[in-house]
Amino acid sequence: MQPQFLKFCRLTPEIVKNAAEKFGTPFYLYDENTIVEKCRQVLAMPNAFGLTVHYAMKANPGKALLQLITAQGLNVDTSSLNEARRAFLAGIPYDRMILTTQEIPFGQDRTDLEKYIHAGLTYNVCSKRQLLLIADYAAAENVPLSMRIHPGVGSGESASRNTGDKYSSFGVHLTNIPEVLDTANARGIVINRVHVHIGSGGDPVTWRENIDRELMFLEKYFPDAETVNFGGGFKEARMPDEDAADIQALGEYATQRILEFYQRTGRKLHMEVEPGTFIVANAGFLVTRVLDKKRTGKDGFNFIILDAGMEANTRPLMYGSRHPFYVVSKDGQLLSHESEKRKNSDAFVLVGKCCESGDSQCLTKNGEIAPRLLTEPQLDDYVIIGGTGAYCSAMSPYNYNSHPQYTEVILRRNGDVQVIRKPQTMEQIVQNELPLEISQTNSTNKRQKINASYPIF
Amino acid sequence: MQPQFLKFCRLTPEIVKNAAEKFGTPFYLYDENTIVEKCRQVLAMPNAFGLTVHYAMKANPGKALLQLITAQGLNVDTSSLNEARRAFLAGIPYDRMILTTQEIPFGQDRTDLEKYIHAGLTYNVCSKRQLLLIADYAAAENVPLSMRIHPGVGSGESASRNTGDKYSSFGVHLTNIPEVLDTANARGIVINRVHVHIGSGGDPVTWRENIDRELMFLEKYFPDAETVNFGGGFKEARMPDEDAADIQALGEYATQRILEFYQRTGRKLHMEVEPGTFIVANAGFLVTRVLDKKRTGKDGFNFIILDAGMEANTRPLMYGSRHPFYVVSKDGQLLSHESEKRKNSDAFVLVGKCCESGDSQCLTKNGEIAPRLLTEPQLDDYVIIGGTGAYCSAMSPYNYNSHPQYTEVILRRNGDVQVIRKPQTMEQIVQNELPLEISQTNSTNKRQKINASYPIF
Repeated sequence: MQPQFLKFCRLTPEIVKNAAEKFGTPFYLYDENTIVEKCRQVLAMPNAFGLTVHYAMKANPGKALLQLITAQGLNVDTSSLNEARRAFLAGIPYDRMILTTQEIPFGQDRTDLEKYIHAGLTYNVCSKRQLLLIADYAAAENVPLSMRIHPGVGSGESASRNTGDKYSSFGVHLTNIPEVLDTANARGIVINRVHVHIGSGGDPVTWRENIDRELMFLEKYFPDAETVNFGGGFKEARMPDEDAADIQALGEYATQRILEFYQRTGRKLHMEVEPGTFIVANAGFLVTRVLDKKRTGKDGFNFIILDAGMEANTRPLMYGSRHPFYVVSKDGQLLSHESEKRKNSDAFVLVGKCCESGDSQCLTKNGEIAPRLLTEPQLDDYVIIGGTGAYCSAMSPYNYNSHPQYTEVILRRNGDVQVIRKPQTMEQIVQNELPLEISQTNSTNKRQKINASYPIF
Repeated sequence: MQPQFLKFCRLTPEIVKNAAEKFGTPFYLYDENTIVEKCRQVLAMPNAFGLTVHYAMKANPGKALLQLITAQGLNVDTSSLNEARRAFLAGIPYDRMILTTQEIPFGQDRTDLEKYIHAGLTYNVCSKRQLLLIADYAAAENVPLSMRIHPGVGSGESASRNTGDKYSSFGVHLTNIPEVLDTANARGIVINRVHVHIGSGGDPVTWRENIDRELMFLEKYFPDAETVNFGGGFKEARMPDEDAADIQALGEYATQRILEFYQRTGRKLHMEVEPGTFIVANAGFLVTRVLDKKRTGKDGFNFIILDAGMEANTRPLMYGSRHPFYVVSKDGQLLSHESEKRKNSDAFVLVGKCCESGDSQCLTKNGEIAPRLLTEPQLDDYVIIGGTGAYCSAMSPYNYNSHPQYTEVILRRNGDVQVIRKPQTMEQIVQNELPLEISQTNSTNKRQKINASYPIF
């Protein structure tokens, strides 16, 4: 049975084969129809007094995807000034962006931030220092600000992805809200939006608790807030045994709470959410080819060496994330499907081509090897790694072992496959490097005395 | 007391401050004197019948460092065809390179590989398939090949960095040696070099066992081998409580075994080693600045937010690696030194500026937070992350959150600080991106019927 996360996918083995022959492996392939349908799902979330959806572009910041997603009606959640700049270069106006960052803008960054705010960017203040640095400008321009709250609790797929509890540093901690608000009030700054992001993969119970806590903060501390931003963290199912967040149920819950809030206070809150993974994760496929096969002795593993690995999808190494695998023969036949094991399935370990033991697509959170069942691919067959639309191209050490950033293509709804990122060249990899100045090199073989006054580190 | 790994370092707090004011943080700074002295140490390893040292450029492939290191007399260990190309662009001839890769060369790659071998590159065959693909060329040109053996045992700092045992796929597994050798013999190919790499961080006992095993393989299977390559994996101490490999003792042990081998067989073996981390790890410093400070409640942590993190040093997130921290005040005073705690030390968690909970420099191998003792830095002070010369700039997801690749500079032995990599610009980040073709976009809001003949994945 076709898993839910492939419900809208229009990718076929034949398209894989044709694209591989045309562009050469490895490459990322994004399915437009999946993205469009996921945007539609999120935009259809139930709400009480209006909904704005910001796409968390850190998940995948490519120009074409930004254009596609914003064309569906989503705005953009940016995590850095550079993301705002990048979105603008893709044609997205600043008034469709919210900026939530750990950065502190100095110099040109500060000038730019003020310019972006002037053009309509929503600045989501995350610390007292951020507030203080923008205070004069915001007060003078009479610009309201958003504030990110650290709610003291959190959820997440792993300890290192837990954004809400004491283990993370994001936002104004709940114990500091009064102090930071006093600072804002003293300068006449209005906080018209409250933001809490609890973390990726949160279960529905935690998400509902988050909604309750945030509305409590909002009622207690933020009399001017008109918008409640629930952040992102809609869990997506990448594997057949995983469950995606039920955003319909979450929307219904939020609607009910926002209506109750209205009945208590007379305030109509606009709702915002910031999905990233939920929009693009299952729209992305990393198409690789089998370079080699090895068995490490009788008690060893069956290794399948692919022509892409950690330099294109580091999530298994960083977080022990699992991705679905599909095997397509070199002549375009589907041999193995993640949720429907075919004949002759055996346990294999899929690894990349980097000179790094961690370059594996089959790791657990503890770094152990977890072989996976699939029909044995032959040399030169294609192995497609699914669920690679989010935090893969965006968060990989592209140039490790001096490999290039790979081609990215999109499968349009009409069946066309178009390039949206050309492969990086070797000249581009080294374009900012400067040689060692030779006049200095001559001295390196002579032993210099270390100046005794050097206060060595 | 100054730890051993800073013995040759000429970096001073004043140099940090001046460089930071000139180039802006964050940036990587490499200490030339440390690199030169580490090269000298490795080149001075005891040996019986000659030694060649290959620098494992995957650790740090920057042009200037390649030029500096090869100027000291080291050759280059390349892990991909692209690394060979990159080293050549840095001015290093192919006859000073050895190539050990998981790649299978097709098309242009194959043509190039033959060209490089013709120019003197040593090809270290790692699988039967690699041998078969190069066999005709090697036989016709009468070029001897090297062979990497998978010795069936290994060591490493973590499961995912264990390159020698059944958990890794590198090299011709010992159980396959006869079969692969038969293939070589049938084609008249001479294997004149045997290579085993056991893995990073191996303890001396494992390393010695490796030497014994490799010489046993060599004696049993490789009558034509003239060179024994022991790979890399010299453990380097990044922290004061860590011990570096005693390469003098390892060299003495290898010398003794190679002499015994000579007495038994009459064969004089040339020795090779391939250090990467050992040469550059402690020569590298990531200079960051304190952006913000936060405390997450009474039972929470003291967070120090730096202007660089996982996008510049991902090793703590990937492997739980520890790095030394130094705090330098914004006016250039050393406040805190890793191996000599100063007054008012407290436990802090150093994190970066990415919108990612895992963006921390204080993680254990299990992803837990491990706060570190240091004198409290103030806003805008410098925090220097040491031990970042290897696998940091080379293996980081530079562009996560759309941050640029950062400036790299080198502190010359004469005290000059020179730029060896200019910072990446936003235009460069997006230079290969193509926009969505607009003629297609118009259709995205119309619901298309899925063609029923689509064999959906």
